[in-house]
Amino acid sequence: MKKELAPEDFAQCPLPIGQHETIQLGHGSGGKMMSDLIDKLFLWAFDNPLLRQMDDAAVLDLNGVRLALSTDSFVVDPIFFPGGNIGELAVNGTVNDISMSGARPLFLSVGMILEEGFSLDELRRIAESMRTAADHAGVKIVTGDTKVVNKGKGDKIYINTTGMGLIERNFVPSSRNLKSGDQIILSGNIAEHGIAILSQREGLAFQVPIESDTASLNGLVTSILDAGEEAVHSLRDPTRGGLTATLNEFAKTSHVGIQIYEEKIPIQEPVSGACELLGLDPLYVANEGKLVAVVAKNRAEKVLEAMHAHPLGAHSEIIGEVLAAKPGMVIMRTHIGGWRIVDTLVGEQLPRIC
Amino acid sequence: MKKELAPEDFAQCPLPIGQHETIQLGHGSGGKMMSDLIDKLFLWAFDNPLLRQMDDAAVLDLNGVRLALSTDSFVVDPIFFPGGNIGELAVNGTVNDISMSGARPLFLSVGMILEEGFSLDELRRIAESMRTAADHAGVKIVTGDTKVVNKGKGDKIYINTTGMGLIERNFVPSSRNLKSGDQIILSGNIAEHGIAILSQREGLAFQVPIESDTASLNGLVTSILDAGEEAVHSLRDPTRGGLTATLNEFAKTSHVGIQIYEEKIPIQEPVSGACELLGLDPLYVANEGKLVAVVAKNRAEKVLEAMHAHPLGAHSEIIGEVLAAKPGMVIMRTHIGGWRIVDTLVGEQLPRIC
Repeated sequence: MKKELAPEDFAQCPLPIGQHETIQLGHGSGGKMMSDLIDKLFLWAFDNPLLRQMDDAAVLDLNGVRLALSTDSFVVDPIFFPGGNIGELAVNGTVNDISMSGARPLFLSVGMILEEGFSLDELRRIAESMRTAADHAGVKIVTGDTKVVNKGKGDKIYINTTGMGLIERNFVPSSRNLKSGDQIILSGNIAEHGIAILSQREGLAFQVPIESDTASLNGLVTSILDAGEEAVHSLRDPTRGGLTATLNEFAKTSHVGIQIYEEKIPIQEPVSGACELLGLDPLYVANEGKLVAVVAKNRAEKVLEAMHAHPLGAHSEIIGEVLAAKPGMVIMRTHIGGWRIVDTLVGEQLPRIC
Repeated sequence: MKKELAPEDFAQCPLPIGQHETIQLGHGSGGKMMSDLIDKLFLWAFDNPLLRQMDDAAVLDLNGVRLALSTDSFVVDPIFFPGGNIGELAVNGTVNDISMSGARPLFLSVGMILEEGFSLDELRRIAESMRTAADHAGVKIVTGDTKVVNKGKGDKIYINTTGMGLIERNFVPSSRNLKSGDQIILSGNIAEHGIAILSQREGLAFQVPIESDTASLNGLVTSILDAGEEAVHSLRDPTRGGLTATLNEFAKTSHVGIQIYEEKIPIQEPVSGACELLGLDPLYVANEGKLVAVVAKNRAEKVLEAMHAHPLGAHSEIIGEVLAAKPGMVIMRTHIGGWRIVDTLVGEQLPRIC
């Protein structure tokens, strides 16, 4: 039954990737190493036009009904952290990926990989949080799978969520749609999720506890699309790799430049303080309840107003704009007035953040 | 934003499950412990009518288009085994779960959890096999996700595949549909996958190498449904827990009895020999390329004929029938003419088989 693979099939794969012969933590980072792995191995192996869309969700047409499908595995360490746990993160993360394609998230599947010896009580608390998060986002968990691996072959719990949403509008925001002059709107304070995880992991106690921003953004997306309609060119939640990874992906995929202004980027003082203390650049730190909307200039103020009216968008700011010049590049005017290139990292700043 | 869970919410969960306070390997077995975990924890937490269908795929209606959604995580050890590897298993497994609902599988998502240090060359071979298996089944991999965990926190590679299929017929086979008099048809020799995995894991060499039967069954399902139409009451692939788990689930869900005849159950001689040597009952050993079809008596011969005409159904046999008596119970007439109850195992016979 099986087609034998010829040696020349293997020879075509553009491996080795960089100088690596094995998987490094950086291959899961959201940075250049991950892009490289995906481009050179997975896109090469699985290549088809639907996969090549390369947005957070695939947009599919089934007998005239347009759907979005998105998958995400969650391996965050620790599994309980200030502001949430791996369960609600897994629900919100996939709800958000679906939402960024402009679809209304409806259904989730849940695949659990449990480590032998994991606490049933913790599992119960995680399942409870998933239900609460699903109710809050208005989605249903409709199918699941449970696997158990031997002690020492996992890390308590890994959760895959795959989501399906319905595209009800006649346009689909995409990272390919940025146009010169578009305004870049960020929905609120950055770097909270990453710093919450890191503080828990490292046992750091801040005067003001920093909580993860994990939240489902489908309601905010509805407000944005109602206000901006097809002037909303792109939506993305800046998770792994932070704001930098999202903006660079936009710039590269749409072949445009992006300029942003450091003083416009909202961040809570305790978070920026923690970043300074830890030697982290908040532009690279993961968010789990924020989005970037790229909106045509003539509708940007209207969209911003709608975002301000939503609880998850109260701190929204226009942080920059799209340029015809400098295609593929993101530049930032710093507080002191200079310009710097904001490029993605090669590897990993904070492993296992989601 | 977060709804606080009240202590009384937690108190309602019917935990602890049995006497266990932590996850055991048996909770992933396909046996009674897994059913218990799913019933008492996941169904309790996530409860909704779509989830409660409890077939291998959820059947969903989206603006009049009927879809099947199914998810499966693969943690098989070893990842390469006689007859296949974890990649093609992950594609075929989800294609099969979708197919058992009578849907035509179309799209897959792939979520990989890679362990730091895993060989890029092995990853490439796995990706290649996934592509080949997807092409063979006529499905497209449309979206994916890659996570990396620290060395010692995973086991080379875990793969989640989630699949979507289109239901094009006006009936849906289901484990709830068995009727007294229905014939039980098995599509071929049992226990090959489990024995192939075990022989590789334990370094056993048989005179005739035993290969996994991993295959996508969507073509065979099309033949069955074309021949039997709505007389095809149920379809299921007997994976974890083997033929026993499938038949017991049918009997319990449809509140019917099932009787089978040992001499009718096809098995290759080297496989039954290996089972004897290893002290395993082949009725409990996983298959990855077989299905059980439950068909109304007046169409059973026609369906069997159609199955014989398909390469993956050449060794199909009618192995038994559905009874009105003994609801929830599976009984077998043995080679020596006695009757035995064939009940599911409590825990785990072969961990990490898929």
